[in-house]
Amino acid sequence: MVFADRLIEKIRAKDSRAIVGLDPRIDQMPAFLRGNGPYAAVTAFHELVIDAVADLVPAVKPQLAFFEQYGVAGMQAFENTVLAAKKRGLLVIADGKRNDISSTAEAYANAYLGADAFDCDAITVTPYLGRDSLVPFVEACKKHNKGLFVVLKTSNPGSKDFEDQPLQSTGRPLYEKIAGVIEELGASSIGESGYSSIGAVIGATFPEEGRRLRELMPKSLILVPGYGAQGGSAKSAAECFHDDGLGAIVNSSRGITYAFGDPAISRDAFVQSVRENTQRMIEEINSAVSLANPQRLLQSPA
Amino acid sequence: MVFADRLIEKIRAKDSRAIVGLDPRIDQMPAFLRGNGPYAAVTAFHELVIDAVADLVPAVKPQLAFFEQYGVAGMQAFENTVLAAKKRGLLVIADGKRNDISSTAEAYANAYLGADAFDCDAITVTPYLGRDSLVPFVEACKKHNKGLFVVLKTSNPGSKDFEDQPLQSTGRPLYEKIAGVIEELGASSIGESGYSSIGAVIGATFPEEGRRLRELMPKSLILVPGYGAQGGSAKSAAECFHDDGLGAIVNSSRGITYAFGDPAISRDAFVQSVRENTQRMIEEINSAVSLANPQRLLQSPA
Repeated sequence: MVFADRLIEKIRAKDSRAIVGLDPRIDQMPAFLRGNGPYAAVTAFHELVIDAVADLVPAVKPQLAFFEQYGVAGMQAFENTVLAAKKRGLLVIADGKRNDISSTAEAYANAYLGADAFDCDAITVTPYLGRDSLVPFVEACKKHNKGLFVVLKTSNPGSKDFEDQPLQSTGRPLYEKIAGVIEELGASSIGESGYSSIGAVIGATFPEEGRRLRELMPKSLILVPGYGAQGGSAKSAAECFHDDGLGAIVNSSRGITYAFGDPAISRDAFVQSVRENTQRMIEEINSAVSLANPQRLLQSPA
Repeated sequence: MVFADRLIEKIRAKDSRAIVGLDPRIDQMPAFLRGNGPYAAVTAFHELVIDAVADLVPAVKPQLAFFEQYGVAGMQAFENTVLAAKKRGLLVIADGKRNDISSTAEAYANAYLGADAFDCDAITVTPYLGRDSLVPFVEACKKHNKGLFVVLKTSNPGSKDFEDQPLQSTGRPLYEKIAGVIEELGASSIGESGYSSIGAVIGATFPEEGRRLRELMPKSLILVPGYGAQGGSAKSAAECFHDDGLGAIVNSSRGITYAFGDPAISRDAFVQSVRENTQRMIEEINSAVSLANPQRLLQSPA
């Protein structure tokens, strides 16, 4: 089954549009997890988080930078985290914002979407290098039934510097031109859900841009970061959804995994904190999406 | 000593503006290196290449994608390759085209420029996410005396899609706006060489753009890929140099390490091939730079 359909199926089954970001920061972990070296700490932290949210969310989004900062041990923990998530039925979106040209782009696609290395379900990529830099990832998605999220409009203030630049040719922002390419690249691989596996990243801090881009690329799945700690609200994130309550997933990292308060927290209390934060987010997103899309037809539990 | 000065010092000492790209592709390696698993093959391949070129070039440029495609074993080989190169006095430019925002950008900077993980001398980054996405890397460069190369104009045909887009505000290509930001970010850290440690990546396949960008960002070091296998000539690459024969380094990967012909090649013949290919490239670049810059004042061996 193509990635888009796998994701939509899990969203429907769990009635959940939230995903959990996995950002290992050992110095912010509960004290009981620290002290056995980065591999053990990062691995154990994520096994607990994954167990806590496996029945609640469709996917997790490990952020590669935070694994890479621990060197080879971090990448070993990444490998383990991917396996643990998949074992629990979660889709894994590797947030690596990779990109390069020709055979180098192929190598990245092999690394994260192929079966021989990290074998995730989807990866985030940056678009600056052009359409031909995205094609090897699109081809890998087709070959392996995987997904792609192209960074389009990010949640930071500096996204105005280059992403927002109006182009001479259209008078419209650069990101709209890129949105057209994303929609075009996904057109040949629309799943039965009606969505393509070639999606986009749009920050929750820019609701107007989200609404406009949702219209410009109706078939693309949107990954929405920036919720919670970065200042994006459920109401803003809801702009990236269609009227049927589908079409996007909203990520929270710190607000779920590092909002437990006292570092001396027990294992059980930590798991409970992660679970409750996730449940609260799911409800906030569902409520905001319902309000924004009154004709929402999703088959919720009757 | 700041990165820019370390690089310029090595360029002068070796009279060499060429750097060697390290792209592990096990299926294209000499037969005697294959068969012991990816860690052993990739490690041994690079130890031979590094030994062959250590006295010839200022730096090597491992391409992370090709390591990552071999999973954790590939990243172990990357760690070893970085150590081997540094031990032989070579600067290491990690070609990862990383980027992200705020604390995630910091994590990437820690991973590749900090002392705790891979501890390279410089990294390549993409600029799409904006000026504030580059700042954590610039800060890490200042803190650790490391360098940054921001992807500006790449060697692929698709670089016209977004990089080249004329902006409504200026009528000039997007990459020129980014060049201004690079020059500005580097202004506060100009070394004794006159160059800043915040540089740019400009493909050898676009000489006119190279010449224009060389003028727009006079203090920035330019990393020039696309030479050889990708179609860029020494003459084109020479446009990225100043009249004094400095200001850029030209990379070749396949043309140096995979141009040996028969896979049944012996160890000694492989080393000889890598060494000769490197020497030929150094001469071609030096000759082209001299022709393009007749007042070249570099102190060559008398």
